[in-house]
Amino acid sequence: MLKVLVVMGSDSDLPKLRSCLETLDDFGVEYTARVCSAHRTPELAHQLAVTAEEAGYGVIIAAAGLAAHLAGVLAAYTTLPVIGLPIAGGALNGLDALYAMVQMPPGIPVATVAIDGARNAALLAIQILALSSPELAAKLKAAKQEMADAVARKDQKLQDSLNA
Amino acid sequence: MLKVLVVMGSDSDLPKLRSCLETLDDFGVEYTARVCSAHRTPELAHQLAVTAEEAGYGVIIAAAGLAAHLAGVLAAYTTLPVIGLPIAGGALNGLDALYAMVQMPPGIPVATVAIDGARNAALLAIQILALSSPELAAKLKAAKQEMADAVARKDQKLQDSLNA
Amino acid sequence: MLKVLVVMGSDSDLPKLRSCLETLDDFGVEYTARVCSAHRTPELAHQLAVTAEEAGYGVIIAAAGLAAHLAGVLAAYTTLPVIGLPIAGGALNGLDALYAMVQMPPGIPVATVAIDGARNAALLAIQILALSSPELAAKLKAAKQEMADAVARKDQKLQDSLNA
Amino acid sequence: MLKVLVVMGSDSDLPKLRSCLETLDDFGVEYTARVCSAHRTPELAHQLAVTAEEAGYGVIIAAAGLAAHLAGVLAAYTTLPVIGLPIAGGALNGLDALYAMVQMPPGIPVATVAIDGARNAALLAIQILALSSPELAAKLKAAKQEMADAVARKDQKLQDSLNA
Amino acid sequence: MLKVLVVMGSDSDLPKLRSCLETLDDFGVEYTARVCSAHRTPELAHQLAVTAEEAGYGVIIAAAGLAAHLAGVLAAYTTLPVIGLPIAGGALNGLDALYAMVQMPPGIPVATVAIDGARNAALLAIQILALSSPELAAKLKAAKQEMADAVARKDQKLQDSLNA
Amino acid sequence: MLKVLVVMGSDSDLPKLRSCLETLDDFGVEYTARVCSAHRTPELAHQLAVTAEEAGYGVIIAAAGLAAHLAGVLAAYTTLPVIGLPIAGGALNGLDALYAMVQMPPGIPVATVAIDGARNAALLAIQILALSSPELAAKLKAAKQEMADAVARKDQKLQDSLNA
Amino acid sequence: MLKVLVVMGSDSDLPKLRSCLETLDDFGVEYTARVCSAHRTPELAHQLAVTAEEAGYGVIIAAAGLAAHLAGVLAAYTTLPVIGLPIAGGALNGLDALYAMVQMPPGIPVATVAIDGARNAALLAIQILALSSPELAAKLKAAKQEMADAVARKDQKLQDSLNA
Amino acid sequence: MLKVLVVMGSDSDLPKLRSCLETLDDFGVEYTARVCSAHRTPELAHQLAVTAEEAGYGVIIAAAGLAAHLAGVLAAYTTLPVIGLPIAGGALNGLDALYAMVQMPPGIPVATVAIDGARNAALLAIQILALSSPELAAKLKAAKQEMADAVARKDQKLQDSLNA
Repeated sequence: MLKVLVVMGSDSDLPKLRSCLETLDDFGVEYTARVCSAHRTPELAHQLAVTAEEAGYGVIIAAAGLAAHLAGVLAAYTTLPVIGLPIAGGALNGLDALYAMVQMPPGIPVATVAIDGARNAALLAIQILALSSPELAAKLKAAKQEMADAVARKDQKLQDSLNA
Repeated sequence: MLKVLVVMGSDSDLPKLRSCLETLDDFGVEYTARVCSAHRTPELAHQLAVTAEEAGYGVIIAAAGLAAHLAGVLAAYTTLPVIGLPIAGGALNGLDALYAMVQMPPGIPVATVAIDGARNAALLAIQILALSSPELAAKLKAAKQEMADAVARKDQKLQDSLNA
Repeated sequence: MLKVLVVMGSDSDLPKLRSCLETLDDFGVEYTARVCSAHRTPELAHQLAVTAEEAGYGVIIAAAGLAAHLAGVLAAYTTLPVIGLPIAGGALNGLDALYAMVQMPPGIPVATVAIDGARNAALLAIQILALSSPELAAKLKAAKQEMADAVARKDQKLQDSLNA
Repeated sequence: MLKVLVVMGSDSDLPKLRSCLETLDDFGVEYTARVCSAHRTPELAHQLAVTAEEAGYGVIIAAAGLAAHLAGVLAAYTTLPVIGLPIAGGALNGLDALYAMVQMPPGIPVATVAIDGARNAALLAIQILALSSPELAAKLKAAKQEMADAVARKDQKLQDSLNA
Repeated sequence: MLKVLVVMGSDSDLPKLRSCLETLDDFGVEYTARVCSAHRTPELAHQLAVTAEEAGYGVIIAAAGLAAHLAGVLAAYTTLPVIGLPIAGGALNGLDALYAMVQMPPGIPVATVAIDGARNAALLAIQILALSSPELAAKLKAAKQEMADAVARKDQKLQDSLNA
Repeated sequence: MLKVLVVMGSDSDLPKLRSCLETLDDFGVEYTARVCSAHRTPELAHQLAVTAEEAGYGVIIAAAGLAAHLAGVLAAYTTLPVIGLPIAGGALNGLDALYAMVQMPPGIPVATVAIDGARNAALLAIQILALSSPELAAKLKAAKQEMADAVARKDQKLQDSLNA
Repeated sequence: MLKVLVVMGSDSDLPKLRSCLETLDDFGVEYTARVCSAHRTPELAHQLAVTAEEAGYGVIIAAAGLAAHLAGVLAAYTTLPVIGLPIAGGALNGLDALYAMVQMPPGIPVATVAIDGARNAALLAIQILALSSPELAAKLKAAKQEMADAVARKDQKLQDSLNA
Repeated sequence: MLKVLVVMGSDSDLPKLRSCLETLDDFGVEYTARVCSAHRTPELAHQLAVTAEEAGYGVIIAAAGLAAHLAGVLAAYTTLPVIGLPIAGGALNGLDALYAMVQMPPGIPVATVAIDGARNAALLAIQILALSSPELAAKLKAAKQEMADAVARKDQKLQDSLNA
C-alpha cells in the first residue's frame, strides 16, 4: 500500500503533529516524518517532492506556520495530492499560514485542513488511500461509527447528570 | 475508474464551476454535477452522500458560498474524500465560506481549496484518482509540463517585448 | 408551555453553556440539553430537528465552535426558530463559528447571538416563548428592571468610592 | 395575530429591505415599516420600542449599517424579540454593522441574521409568530417544501443541460 | 472651567479606566465618573446626555466593550464632543467595540481613541478644554516636554547599557 | 473665533473632503485647507503643526489614506486637538488608514472618525469650537433638530408610500 | 553597477508592474523582467535565484498575488536582498499575498512593500543600490525634492482654488 | 563599512529586539541602538534621519508597535533604505503596526519584515550591506548553510526518535 510522507517545517511543530502521526499509526498506515523547511532547506524540499512518488508515497502532508510555503513548494514538484496543515503561531496565530496554504493559484492545488487540524490531515490522507484499499475503507467506517457512539455516550452522560 | 460527484449549493454557482467541469472533461474523468443545498434540500444531501460510494464515486467536490455547510454536511455522511470549494459572494466575499469549509472539527476533514479555486478542485480530485490510474497520472505530469511551458513562453514574450 | 431544546456540538462546550441553562432555570423554562454533533452524529441531528416540534419544543438553541454547522443543519430540518450560539475556541477564536452561523443563505435563518453569548441565547429563547406567556413576559420585565437596578447600585458604589 | 415592526436606520436601506417586506406580505403577516435612526432620532427609537408591545407588535426587525446601534437601542427598551439585520455599505461593507449588532452584552440579546439577509429576517420573525399560529406554521412548512422543490427542479435542469 | 463626564458601560471597566481618571486628576480637571449601560440603563444614558451641558460638562468620555453603543447613544442626545474609548474583551478583543464606536453615520460624530487607550481619552478631553484655558494649555505643553525628556533619558540609558 | 486647519495627505483626497469643507462653511467656521504629506513634505507638516496654535487654529483635521501617518505626525508637534479622518482606498480600503490613525500610543491622542467620515470630522471640530461659542452651540442644536426632522419626513413618506 | 531582477508570478501582473519598471528606467537602473511562477516553474525560480548574484544582480523584486510564495522561494536560494511586492486580486484582494510575503520565518527575510506598491518596490531597490553609487544617491535626493515640490504646487493650487 | 542604525519606539521593545542586535553582533556589523518615538520625540526622529547618512549609517531599522509611524517618519527624512519591524502588542497584536508600516504611499518605501521578525530585520540589513562587502556576503552564505545543516540535524534526530 502507498505510504504517507509527513513533512513539517520545523521540529517545533512536532507536538502539534502528534495526533496526525498517532492517527496514521491507529489505521496501520505507513508513513515517514521529516523536518524540512521550504526556506531553509529548499533543496531537500525539492528532493523529497520529486522522489516521493517513486519512493512509494501516495499522499504528502505538509505542516507549517507563518508564511507557510511548504505545502505549495512541495506541490510544485509533484502531482501527488498534497495536504496542507496550517500551524497556529506568531502574532497572526495561523491566519497567515491558512491563507498561504489555501489560496494557491490555478494549476497547483493544496488540500488544506483546519489550522492545527492535525488529526484531520491524517484522516484525509487515509480517506484518499482507502479508495484503493477496502480494508482501510472498512476501518474508516468503523472509526466513524465509533465517533458517533462516543458522542452518544457523552449525550447520555450529560442527560444523566442534568436529571440527577 | 471512480467518478467525481460535483455538488453545488445553488445553480447560480454554475458559472464559477465551469473551469472545474472543463478540467474534469479535459482529463477524461467522468463526473455528475448536481444542485443540492445543505439547508434547502438536506435530505437530498444526505442521500447523495450515503449512496456516493456505491454509485461509483471516488471523490466529492462541494461548492458553496456564505455559511457554506455543504462540504461538511456531505462529509458527515461518507468516508470518501470531500473537496470543499468556497465560492465568493455576499458582503464577506467568500471569507465566510472559506472559514465554514476549512475549520472542520477533528474527525470529519474537508479538503479545502482557494476561494473560487474551481480548477484546483478538479485537479485535486484528479490527483486523488490518479493514485490508482497510471494513465491519469501521466496526464497530470503532461499537464504540469505544459503549464510550465506556457509560463516559459510568456516569459520569452515579455522579454522580447521589453527588448524590442 | 413550549420547551427549549439546547443542543451543543460537544460536551466540552458545557461549561460555556452553564449560564444559558441557569437562565432557563431561573425563568422556569423547561428544557432538554443534548450533545449532538452536526458532523459526527448527523443522523441524531436530523432526528432531533424533525421531532422537535412534536416533542413540545418551541425554540432550539444550537451551540458550536469552529466550522459551526450545527445551527444551520438543525434549521434545515425544522421551521422552529433556531438560535445560534457561536463558541470561541481554536486559532480563530470563534470568528469562524460566528460566520458559519450568521451568514446563512436566504430561506433558512439562524438567530445568531454573540460569541460565547450563552445567557443571551437563553434570554432570546425566553423572549420568544413569552409572546404567548404573560407570566414569562412579566418575569422578563422584572429581570430587565433588576438589571437596571444592579447597574444603578454599581454606579452609586463607584461614586461613593471616588468621593471617599 | 401579533404584527411585525420593521425599523430601518435610513430610507436608503429600503431597497435592501424589499425582500423582507415582500416575504411578510407573502405570508400574510401584518407589519409597519418605519424610518428611525438610533442616532438622529433617538427619541423616536425610544418611543417605538416602549410602545411596541402595547401596539400589538410581537417582533421587531431593525436594519442598519455602519456602527449599527439601532437593534441594540430598541432592544434596550423592550422585552420583545429584536431581530438585527446588518446592512452592507461603507468601507467595511457591513462587517462593522454585523459586529455592532451581534456582539451584544449579556442581558440584551439581538437575534442577528446575515449581512443583507433581509428575507431571513422576515422568515425568522414569521417562525417566531408561527409558534402561536398553526396557520403560519403550515405556511412555513409549505414554503420549505416549495424551496426544496425549486432546488430539485434546478438540479434536474442542470443535469438535463449537461447531458444534452 | 468645564468638567469631564466619564461614563463606563460596566464597573468591570474601571481598572482599564484608572489611567484616564489619574490623568484628569494630574491636570486638575474636574470630572464625574459614572457606570451606565446603553442597553441596561438606557434611560440613565439619556438623562446623563441631555443634562450634561447644563450640569457644566464640556466633554463626555464613554468607555465600553463588545457592541459598544454607549458613545453613540450619548452622542445622539447631546452636541457636546463625545470621546469613544473602546475596551478590549470578549472573543473579538475590542475590534467589535472599535468598529461600533468609530463607524458612526454622518451627523453624529464620536471622537474615537485606541482600544484600551484610556490615557489618550483623558488627554484628548484636556486638549479640548485647553482651548479656553491657557493654564491647561501650558500644562499640556509641559507634559509633552516631560514625555520627550523621559524618552531621551531612556535613550541615554539604553546607549549606556549597550556600551557598558 | 478659533479656525480649523484641514490638512489632506494628497490633493486626490479633495473630493472626499468636500462635505467636510461644506459643513464648515455651513456653520460659518473659518478654515484653511492644505495639501501636505507626512512622508513627502514632512517639513511642511512640522511647520503647519508647530505654528497652528499661534496662527489662530483651534482644531486640526487630518485626512489621509493607506499608512495614514499624517494625523499622528501633526499631533506629535502640537497640543491642539487633532481629528483623524481615514480615507478609503487601496487594497485594504481604508482599514489600514483607520488602524494607523486610531491606534496611537499613550501620550499623543488622535480623535478618529469613521472611514470617509468627512462630515463628522467637521461636526466634531465644530462641537469642540462650540464649547466657547454659544452661537455655534445654538447652530449645532438647530442642525441636530433639522436632522431629526428630515428623518421624520422620510419616515412619513415611507409610510405614505407603503399605505398608498 | 549591479542590476535589478524583476520577477513576476504571472504575465497578468505586468500592468501593475509598469510603474516599477518605469521608475527603474527613470533612474537609469538596469534590470531584467521575467515571468516565473514559484509553483508552475519552480525550477526556473530556483535557477534564477541561484544564478542572480553571478549574473550581476544586486536586488530581486518578486511580485505575486494569492498565496504569493515567489519572494520566499527566491529568497530561499540566494542571499541577495529580495523585495516582495504583493499583488491585489482574488477574493481576499491581496491580503493573502501580503501575509504570504511578509510573515517569513526567521532566517529568510523578504523586504515587503505595500499591496500593489510597485513604484516603492523600485525605489527601495534603488535605495539599496545607491549605497554604493553616489550618482544614484544624488538622483534619489533630487527625486525626493521634486516630490516635495509637486506636493507644494498642489497645495498652492488648492489654496488658489478655494480662495478664488 | 556602513553601520546600521536601530531605532525603537519605546525601550519596552528592547527584549523583542535582542535577536536583532545579536544577529548584527554575530556578523560583526557595527550598529547604534536608539530609543526614539515618532510621536513623543519627533524632533529627535527628524534629527536621526537627516544625519544618518553623514554619520556613516547605511541602513535604518525602525521597530514600533500600535500605530507604528516610526519607520515612515524616518523614511520621510532620508533616502537610506529603512527596514520596518512591526512589534506585536495591544489589542490588535501587531496587525495595526504591520499595516501602518507596510502600506506606505508611493514615493517613500519601508522594507517591512514579519511582526516581531527581529532577526530577519537584521539579516535584511546585512544582506543590503553585503552588496559592497564580499566578507559579509561570505558570512551570509555560511550562515545559510549552517541553517540548512541545523534543519538536517533536526530531521535526522526526528527520524531516529520515530524509528527508535
